[in-house]
Amino acid sequence: MFDRNENASVSVPGLIRRVAIVGGTHGNELTGIYLVKKFEQFPDLIDRPTLECSTILANPKAISANQRYIDRDLNRCFSNVDLANSTLTSYEDQRAKEIAAQLGPKDQPNVDLIIDLHSTTSNMGLTILPSTKHRVNLRLAAYLSTLHPAVRVCCGVQCSQDAPMLRSLSPYGCTIEVGAIAQGIVAAEQLQHTEMLVHAILDYLDAINQEVPLPVPSNLTIYQGISAIDYPRNALGELQAIIHPQLQFKDYEPLRDGAPMFLTFTGESIPYRGETIVYPVFINESAYYEKKIALVLTEKQQISL
Amino acid sequence: MFDRNENASVSVPGLIRRVAIVGGTHGNELTGIYLVKKFEQFPDLIDRPTLECSTILANPKAISANQRYIDRDLNRCFSNVDLANSTLTSYEDQRAKEIAAQLGPKDQPNVDLIIDLHSTTSNMGLTILPSTKHRVNLRLAAYLSTLHPAVRVCCGVQCSQDAPMLRSLSPYGCTIEVGAIAQGIVAAEQLQHTEMLVHAILDYLDAINQEVPLPVPSNLTIYQGISAIDYPRNALGELQAIIHPQLQFKDYEPLRDGAPMFLTFTGESIPYRGETIVYPVFINESAYYEKKIALVLTEKQQISL
Repeated sequence: MFDRNENASVSVPGLIRRVAIVGGTHGNELTGIYLVKKFEQFPDLIDRPTLECSTILANPKAISANQRYIDRDLNRCFSNVDLANSTLTSYEDQRAKEIAAQLGPKDQPNVDLIIDLHSTTSNMGLTILPSTKHRVNLRLAAYLSTLHPAVRVCCGVQCSQDAPMLRSLSPYGCTIEVGAIAQGIVAAEQLQHTEMLVHAILDYLDAINQEVPLPVPSNLTIYQGISAIDYPRNALGELQAIIHPQLQFKDYEPLRDGAPMFLTFTGESIPYRGETIVYPVFINESAYYEKKIALVLTEKQQISL
Repeated sequence: MFDRNENASVSVPGLIRRVAIVGGTHGNELTGIYLVKKFEQFPDLIDRPTLECSTILANPKAISANQRYIDRDLNRCFSNVDLANSTLTSYEDQRAKEIAAQLGPKDQPNVDLIIDLHSTTSNMGLTILPSTKHRVNLRLAAYLSTLHPAVRVCCGVQCSQDAPMLRSLSPYGCTIEVGAIAQGIVAAEQLQHTEMLVHAILDYLDAINQEVPLPVPSNLTIYQGISAIDYPRNALGELQAIIHPQLQFKDYEPLRDGAPMFLTFTGESIPYRGETIVYPVFINESAYYEKKIALVLTEKQQISL
């Protein structure tokens, strides 16, 4: 089950020493914000012999306003094209450039690994979204999967440094997406679980650096994003249907051809249609209504490490 | 159990004929907004032989912005003092005056009964918050309590027309507060339950008017608000503790002396201290962080009708 010869089997370009822990990329996702504040108040917590850990509150104005963002979603501002575009001057575009100067650039980042802490109104448990499918990230995710049954590993439709997410400033690292949590609240249990995962990542990296690597399973289940589905809308863009009650909170459960997906306001069910079994995530995520995403379909894959 | 001689035992000052159904008093509580939109699209749904039902989307700008409010909480703008104060010109103060002109004034309202549809991030099931403790409201609430096990009747600390809530424009009516729901999402099951309650209220009123009143239990359990408790904060007002994981989502469950209430960021439990058993509500309501309310304590009371 476990491969104990970690260092022999992984091609890491140098050790991972510089780690950035980011909270508040979205200003109303309080789990990461309060965790970063805690680490800033008690820096010993993230002190490891072989690591240099830094913390960032990514979107201070949005945090003060208790809003996801001020002008636009900061976590979509990190494409190389946008970072290089000096005509983009919104608050979040400015912050993205500042953060990229601090942590990036993507091809030669100032940090080795980024942990970006998020929450979601979807029932996604403790989801790890690796920055890339680099073996370093997948082995780390596989290790985290052994720690709690709610840990799932989900690769975005864009799981590469080409993505416009903050995490893509470095090839190594992940977003941690915990839920279901309403925006604007601190949920103690999920705060504890997120903190546990941050500590586990630091311990895992430190153990590799100290040449006493922690055991990693030889296989990993990932949920690979394949497409997003919008709500049924009318010509004005208004919702005509909502997530079916049988699908609500059923993230990562199999969805088969004919199973109810939406419910119209007049009471009709709209089923999922597709030959393959899919595993939806981000079901009824509040912030995705405006992005025209009701849910994201994934395929379940086994990866040998 | 049931008193079938309703008309004989209740002193109603005239029949209740004019009913206002309000959604979007808070712009990010989508349950009421989509239900009002549905009723506006299909007005036959709220058509009853003896009733004149109207609908209002109370805070259109906040609804468009998907925010609770623009300038200040509309549902705290309805005190008589504020309504009479022409120097209060925020968007919500203006809307409050417009709505009061339409539904009020409090001492001689243009509608007989107001149903104000809300949602909460607290686990409050299907909570009825009567506008006043008038026997008409309590009997209606008792009737609704028979329809679904999640129905609870909660009287605010201010359960009178002196309160600054929209519902207080009329002595008759209630707020319906459903949860737990994150802001900015439509949750199908809770939408269906809220719609069921609105229909039940209309049917109940129509049946009285038609002199075939529906059966009402002779006793009612109410949860009477007695005080609000803030989060432990430091001198800067920053949170020092959060709702204890053992208390999260435990609205309406008994809280006894010594039971954990808060958890500090350093891991210490802070217990509830009090001689009487209380029943907390609005536990970890997102919108109440800024109001300095972590939870509201209630006492459980039996009322004979």
